[in-house]
Amino acid sequence: MPFRDHIARCNNYDPARIVPLFAGAERIGLVRRDNAEALKRFPDVFAVAEDKVALVVPGDAVAISRSVDRVVDALVAEKQIPKTRDETFDVALRWGAPPLFRVDRGAVPFFGTRAYGVHLNGYRRDGNEVMLWVGRRAADKRVAPDKLDNMVAGGIGNGYGLIDTLVKEADEEAMVPPGLIARAVPAGAVSYRMETALGIRDDVLFVYDLEVPPDFVPQNRDGEFSGFALMPAAAVLDRIRSSFDFKFNVNLVILDFAVRHGLLGPDDPEYLDVATGLHRRLD
Amino acid sequence: MPFRDHIARCNNYDPARIVPLFAGAERIGLVRRDNAEALKRFPDVFAVAEDKVALVVPGDAVAISRSVDRVVDALVAEKQIPKTRDETFDVALRWGAPPLFRVDRGAVPFFGTRAYGVHLNGYRRDGNEVMLWVGRRAADKRVAPDKLDNMVAGGIGNGYGLIDTLVKEADEEAMVPPGLIARAVPAGAVSYRMETALGIRDDVLFVYDLEVPPDFVPQNRDGEFSGFALMPAAAVLDRIRSSFDFKFNVNLVILDFAVRHGLLGPDDPEYLDVATGLHRRLD
Repeated sequence: MPFRDHIARCNNYDPARIVPLFAGAERIGLVRRDNAEALKRFPDVFAVAEDKVALVVPGDAVAISRSVDRVVDALVAEKQIPKTRDETFDVALRWGAPPLFRVDRGAVPFFGTRAYGVHLNGYRRDGNEVMLWVGRRAADKRVAPDKLDNMVAGGIGNGYGLIDTLVKEADEEAMVPPGLIARAVPAGAVSYRMETALGIRDDVLFVYDLEVPPDFVPQNRDGEFSGFALMPAAAVLDRIRSSFDFKFNVNLVILDFAVRHGLLGPDDPEYLDVATGLHRRLD
Repeated sequence: MPFRDHIARCNNYDPARIVPLFAGAERIGLVRRDNAEALKRFPDVFAVAEDKVALVVPGDAVAISRSVDRVVDALVAEKQIPKTRDETFDVALRWGAPPLFRVDRGAVPFFGTRAYGVHLNGYRRDGNEVMLWVGRRAADKRVAPDKLDNMVAGGIGNGYGLIDTLVKEADEEAMVPPGLIARAVPAGAVSYRMETALGIRDDVLFVYDLEVPPDFVPQNRDGEFSGFALMPAAAVLDRIRSSFDFKFNVNLVILDFAVRHGLLGPDDPEYLDVATGLHRRLD
């Protein structure tokens, strides 16, 4: 797969297939037309028109969340939404704004609300070579089972801030000690808009780099990874170019790492596709 | 100026104000409607319709360039295009493809063909602080006179490759010796689409970082810079946030540097605007 195929796959969003979800005058989500159709049965919560869906239930975040939960439960019962994951994501007008409501993580693509994650590139230098710590996702993960992943990655759930999430996931997924994770350096964000079987992923991934010492070996303790491997960055890029072995969005995070560190240079015919393809403008 | 104002300024392109310029079935430029109107007088070279302009002159790159030159000369005589700059840019279907024709640099925005440049962030570390070498553009530059700039920057003219341009500009603008410029690391590309008084800038800037030793002091020898200053990166970011002192696109290149190096972090309320606003998808 050329690099651009991975980028295109994460950006296969087609505006013709969705209607915007509004809260008041502001768009907060992107609902596929078939999903919008399914929302017509809940007119006290969502007003579904030809060209938009509006959240119409009044009240504060707690009250709205309760109403949306009721809709989600009904759709789960009808198998329109997969079983809930018992983790909620904030829905807000923008990053850092107070949440309008909270929604089960499994239902996020159904509403196409923006989701935030944090991904950590764990690397070390062996002489002139950059080596990446690559995780393998557990075979029982719902999303991308058995696929290769960053050393640490996770969604930012309700109640956790960005750094909280990074520290918690680094501990649970790779047993990165506090003194080491404190040296992680923020390095930007990867963003994309993708249609999946469930709806729309409108994702923003905060990216961190962490140079680890030679004696550090990640170890999983939450069952989310089945193991880790240390791979030369060049071999990782070859693997990305020739396979779908990495989780869909992890390809983008690693390509971003490669561009920022000069591991993928302008001599590569796909350089500009990559350098300009990983940061979808937020709108 | 919030960071996002600098980004918005470089992306003020409005598709309603232009018509595409085609060569055969492929779009090669973006012509503002008033500029398209002016091209109607050269029907042997450009066919101007309501919704597009087509390059219709036959022949190879040399022949087409000659015809386009004739149009440019006529428009310069009428002051529709500023005086030619005696430097030509390649026009191609994409980066690395053989040129369809060459056009005077001063006429590039008139046709809105894509232009490529190279920008080098020259920096050093003083203890924990990152310091940036900042150039001041000469007062007689046509574009952005007297504005602050990267240590090295230049357009990629016809006949020069990317590395050729970097080495040449580094030598002429800042007297960076060959052994030092060889250590420059590619770090991505900044891209934007901007309307100016002349037309459309559809620009891609190849970005390089160069860590310079403490005893290196850039010196200009081509008259393009009036001087250099070594500034703490934090002070540069403050300056960007509070002024238009830097050349329009240099703000973006430095913001990209700051994000990649963790100098601008997620605690900044504009972090996501910046991290997702510097890399316009090429289309």
